[in-house]
Amino acid sequence: MSEELVGNVLVGQSGGPTAVINASLAGVIAEALNHAEIEEIYGTLNGVLGILQEDFIDLAAESQQTIRGLKFTPGAALGTCRYKLKKQADYERVLEVFKAHNIRFFFYAGGNDSQDTADKISKLAQEQGYNLRVIGIPKTIDNDLPTIDHCPGYGSVIKYIATTIREIACDNEAMGQHDLVQIVEVMGRNAGWIAAGAALAKRKDCPHDAPHIILLPEVAFAAEKFIADVQRVLKREKSCLVVVGEGLIDADGNYVSAAEATDSFGHAQLGGAADYLQGLVEQNLPGIKARTVKLGMAQRAAVHAASKTDTDEAYLAGQAAVKAAIAGETDVMITLLRGDHDHYTVETGLAPLSEIANGVKKLPREWISEDGISMNQQFLRYALPLIQGETVVPYDNGLPAFVKLDKNRIEKRLGGYAL
Amino acid sequence: MSEELVGNVLVGQSGGPTAVINASLAGVIAEALNHAEIEEIYGTLNGVLGILQEDFIDLAAESQQTIRGLKFTPGAALGTCRYKLKKQADYERVLEVFKAHNIRFFFYAGGNDSQDTADKISKLAQEQGYNLRVIGIPKTIDNDLPTIDHCPGYGSVIKYIATTIREIACDNEAMGQHDLVQIVEVMGRNAGWIAAGAALAKRKDCPHDAPHIILLPEVAFAAEKFIADVQRVLKREKSCLVVVGEGLIDADGNYVSAAEATDSFGHAQLGGAADYLQGLVEQNLPGIKARTVKLGMAQRAAVHAASKTDTDEAYLAGQAAVKAAIAGETDVMITLLRGDHDHYTVETGLAPLSEIANGVKKLPREWISEDGISMNQQFLRYALPLIQGETVVPYDNGLPAFVKLDKNRIEKRLGGYAL
Repeated sequence: MSEELVGNVLVGQSGGPTAVINASLAGVIAEALNHAEIEEIYGTLNGVLGILQEDFIDLAAESQQTIRGLKFTPGAALGTCRYKLKKQADYERVLEVFKAHNIRFFFYAGGNDSQDTADKISKLAQEQGYNLRVIGIPKTIDNDLPTIDHCPGYGSVIKYIATTIREIACDNEAMGQHDLVQIVEVMGRNAGWIAAGAALAKRKDCPHDAPHIILLPEVAFAAEKFIADVQRVLKREKSCLVVVGEGLIDADGNYVSAAEATDSFGHAQLGGAADYLQGLVEQNLPGIKARTVKLGMAQRAAVHAASKTDTDEAYLAGQAAVKAAIAGETDVMITLLRGDHDHYTVETGLAPLSEIANGVKKLPREWISEDGISMNQQFLRYALPLIQGETVVPYDNGLPAFVKLDKNRIEKRLGGYAL
Repeated sequence: MSEELVGNVLVGQSGGPTAVINASLAGVIAEALNHAEIEEIYGTLNGVLGILQEDFIDLAAESQQTIRGLKFTPGAALGTCRYKLKKQADYERVLEVFKAHNIRFFFYAGGNDSQDTADKISKLAQEQGYNLRVIGIPKTIDNDLPTIDHCPGYGSVIKYIATTIREIACDNEAMGQHDLVQIVEVMGRNAGWIAAGAALAKRKDCPHDAPHIILLPEVAFAAEKFIADVQRVLKREKSCLVVVGEGLIDADGNYVSAAEATDSFGHAQLGGAADYLQGLVEQNLPGIKARTVKLGMAQRAAVHAASKTDTDEAYLAGQAAVKAAIAGETDVMITLLRGDHDHYTVETGLAPLSEIANGVKKLPREWISEDGISMNQQFLRYALPLIQGETVVPYDNGLPAFVKLDKNRIEKRLGGYAL
């Protein structure tokens, strides 16, 4: 099915980083070296921004040591962006730049918005009769891309969070003297995938283990029920550990944190779901102490606690993208398909970019227990395989040793472009 | 120097847990088994509270597997407390309980307040002519105990924080499009030891690496200087990473974000320094995004990222406490002394409990750079050896496997006691 196409590779990273997006980059580079059809391997700095401005670097010139180290380096080594191509002229510019550098294989790692951008670039190339193969690489801690069993980045973020919850739980249990409510805020603006992952911290057959309450955007928040739930847990345990996704909403669909809490300047606080709950507990339960942890960007960068399964799958997705392009595929994103076995297996598949661009995978309501604050066996069966294995990060002098790309620039061939 | 003393051991844990306080407990138990003078090995649940209430467990009855697992389990396996013995009757009760259970060797792991309690118990025993040996075991992430080079618990908390800072720095650098101020709040009520440890995240000879600004309680906070420092960093870098200790104070000595509540020792409960700085940045630097991370209790429980040096030293301190008691010592705390060599060596020493109880070790002003927001080589030379080596925590099904004590109760011999 493959027609002969020879030219250069361009790979880019987009959206928020994950612990394993650089593993996908390493997979692309390693696989690209295997194919004679691929002449040069370029990276674009800061995603589409780098394309518009011709900010390309020579990835084949990087040392093998550096490329190997990418698998264990958080952030996005090429730089990323949240820039959205706005006007038709932007897309025309992308094609102009691709032609100037003979880019024939374009790999873009990102979430919905990024795959939408890739899709539009691909469609314009087809309109113009420019032979280009565009393959998306899935990436998001949010785990909300459709058509894929799970997203690279998700397994690592929930492994880190479940580890952290299990550790904090030991600490809380030790402080037996006080009635303590511990509130841990995690990411997840629109879906509860990340908060749900905290449920893995419970030991098998110990339903009373922390986390005792998981608050998901899928379940409308009601303050009275929350306080009653906390009281019930405190009666049973010495402390109550609450995990809350930042995107918690009330019955009217409003973010719970936005309106109520204000900071010392009287401004509404950003992402203050935990602070809001802390206030709620201390106002309604006199004598109870509430403490907060906000993991913020630490959670998506925590490569030191990454899942080996996730790292390996992210690398595999990068490799699969190159193989698909060489095989003649375009306009598709690499997917991960779970085998239908008792033991976990995964293989890659393909899905049209247009399907990814506009879909969102919701956390299934039937995976949430009836109490609305815990996850059932169906979720645990889904999530547990994703956190298996520990990524062994190289340490130097007591700290993880991360790599930086040399970033040898490719000479620009066109004039500047005003954003 | 040792007079023959035969009887039972009691060991307790007090104050906030650390990643390695259970390693000290394991050291006590392992060493106690070596000495014929020691008949039973009891643990008190929740420190002095357990003594007042005769809540003792039989530590010799725990499995070897469990004791080994303590080295890799956060929290405080015996439970801890912040209860302060208030009245003379409390101390009398302690002695009464000790006599009833023939406690002759008392080991207490904790910070200043706990060593003060141990000191008073010891003094009363002497007054009453009850032969008792009391040995303190140092424990605090705050690293503020006098007479000791560094405290068990400190190396692990700064290893975790420096790891996290290095990871977040990769993430921030990847988001090249925005001007971002990332603010990470860490513990440290009265001293900047913990925040200072973040400085280890910088690679050697890369002074411009994150963290770009470290705010310490030792340096009076001035909002104008802070904003100017942030602006200077943003001009040079794409993002500015700030580490702030919770106990930040202004020129008048007031906590920058003090809350009303105080704990049972009369310490002001802190938190909210990062939120305060976020507001300051967004108010004074329009268009700049500020984001916060609050590590909270996660930092003192993070055994998955603990320092092997720290874990080993905590274990060593537990062993040394038993050896000292057997050798006839009492009224002393185990200290860690750094050798006077080019390479790092450590050995244990002894210091009077009374010296520990009332002293505080300040972060030396001369270890803070002249700019007031970074640490110099003297600090790095001090701190770097403490984070060497990675504690290898056993994993089970993708998560750290922590142990719980069976807690076989010792029969009470006295009537109840009203707190």
